[in-house]
Amino acid sequence: MNKLLIVGTVAFDAIETPFGKTDKILGGAATYIGLSASFFNLKSAIVSVVGDDFPQEYLDLLKDRNIDISGLEIVKGGKTFFWSGRYHNDLNSRDTLDTQLNTLADFQPKVPQEFKDADVVMLGNLHPLVQASVLDQMEKEPKLVVLDTMNFWMDCALPELLDVIKRVDVITINDEEARQLTGEYSLVKAAAKIHTMGPEYVVIKKGEHGALLFHGKEIFFAPALPLEEVFDPTGAGDTFAGGFAGFIAQSENVSFKNMKNAIIYGSNLASFCVEKFGTERMVGLEKAAVHERLQQFKALTQFDIVVENNG
Amino acid sequence: MNKLLIVGTVAFDAIETPFGKTDKILGGAATYIGLSASFFNLKSAIVSVVGDDFPQEYLDLLKDRNIDISGLEIVKGGKTFFWSGRYHNDLNSRDTLDTQLNTLADFQPKVPQEFKDADVVMLGNLHPLVQASVLDQMEKEPKLVVLDTMNFWMDCALPELLDVIKRVDVITINDEEARQLTGEYSLVKAAAKIHTMGPEYVVIKKGEHGALLFHGKEIFFAPALPLEEVFDPTGAGDTFAGGFAGFIAQSENVSFKNMKNAIIYGSNLASFCVEKFGTERMVGLEKAAVHERLQQFKALTQFDIVVENNG
Repeated sequence: MNKLLIVGTVAFDAIETPFGKTDKILGGAATYIGLSASFFNLKSAIVSVVGDDFPQEYLDLLKDRNIDISGLEIVKGGKTFFWSGRYHNDLNSRDTLDTQLNTLADFQPKVPQEFKDADVVMLGNLHPLVQASVLDQMEKEPKLVVLDTMNFWMDCALPELLDVIKRVDVITINDEEARQLTGEYSLVKAAAKIHTMGPEYVVIKKGEHGALLFHGKEIFFAPALPLEEVFDPTGAGDTFAGGFAGFIAQSENVSFKNMKNAIIYGSNLASFCVEKFGTERMVGLEKAAVHERLQQFKALTQFDIVVENNG
Repeated sequence: MNKLLIVGTVAFDAIETPFGKTDKILGGAATYIGLSASFFNLKSAIVSVVGDDFPQEYLDLLKDRNIDISGLEIVKGGKTFFWSGRYHNDLNSRDTLDTQLNTLADFQPKVPQEFKDADVVMLGNLHPLVQASVLDQMEKEPKLVVLDTMNFWMDCALPELLDVIKRVDVITINDEEARQLTGEYSLVKAAAKIHTMGPEYVVIKKGEHGALLFHGKEIFFAPALPLEEVFDPTGAGDTFAGGFAGFIAQSENVSFKNMKNAIIYGSNLASFCVEKFGTERMVGLEKAAVHERLQQFKALTQFDIVVENNG
């Protein structure tokens, strides 16, 4: 089985949406990535850090999905990274109410020996120096390195971010962040500029408006599945990235054609994530439901025009 | 050849975008719809009104595209409808600077005898009573009636709008308007409510984020083509509607499957419209370029996943 190495936060989230609010629940980029990637046939491991306030129940939940957590450091007497946010009525924007770095402040990632030859590395949103440190520890060049990041690092650690971006094959980034990183409003121009920064593939996430995959002049688009109700968008981007990286890792095929499929799978899994609070939907999700929804994605996007008949 | 009857404004527009501004140029919903539909094999006619300040050159331009303008009333001593607007930097929103109804204020549409048995009727954005009057004049039930409208009529003439909406097969409306009309934020729920108002098919236009077609539980999505540069969005929605109605009129097929193709053609034509100011790009456009771009839409959206291999 192929190996997927995941780095990112494992965290407590407290979320408010127009539909309700939660106390501290399981969250973090690596958590969502790991849960999403667990729908594929692969061996995955999470490299991250938590405090000893992190409940055994959550550790078991990750282990139950066959996620190797030997690289998940538990700091004695430390507290787990905490994020709290409130979504606006349209669910497209949110305010951060509180961020407590806690053990994340001094995190030194340690890649388990067994995953130093991982086929795919998914660098979830974290300080770019942590992302780079994971790459430094690899003993074999991965077939694919995927990086996710956010505007925060563009504001606070841009040189370090640009350094690590140079080293990856795929970057996943949202539309506003792509514009901030490049100074280009047009996403086509933004993607072209990001190509020159290193990544051969650029994925621009547009939330409810879908995702674009750029590879030179080639472009592919996957819509978000139109849903009756979006309950909580937290983790949707990470779930998307986990589906993308997981699909690639399973299939061992890094062609553009296969990346299209990976984007569809990422969108598919993300469409479940937003149906309930936090990780709740992903934890209870069955593979059969994912496969069934794939048919909905096909129905949503596939058409058959014979050009010759159209004048 | 099948017949398409178009009602809507024929107008002067003055447009400001971040890329420049125009004096009074040719505009209006029926103009854009007519130009867009002229890429299909059909007979089309525009029912509208202008003043005698409307230049012969513009009339010739419509006639040159084989558009019947015998239903385009020219009011002696009257002035043509004028709209002026300024787009914001993101081109997704605009301010109306000036609206002069002029001859449009007392417009009584007269459908040419030859088009009272039109196969498809495209009711472009106008007062709902004008749209209803066109339907009243039909002597044969059209195969398909498509209605476009805007928030203005929801604010000022909602009962009349609801009356005409009852009578149409397809409504095209943008996302914000769908939300206003139904009080539902979720577009899936909004479309379901609009179905109950009459239209069997609901098209929700999301501008640069594409368009959704709803038919009961069936949903199809067409993305907007990602462009390096959007120059002027004016008329994109009407061009989309004209491509949709024109494709259906040409093919005489009102199945959901064929409407998918119509949505793609609408998006295709709209992607050209925004490349230059006003109608400029549509006037110079060749069919070959439209067919070529269809391949781009296929590359952008088509994928091929074999589910069985994906775990």
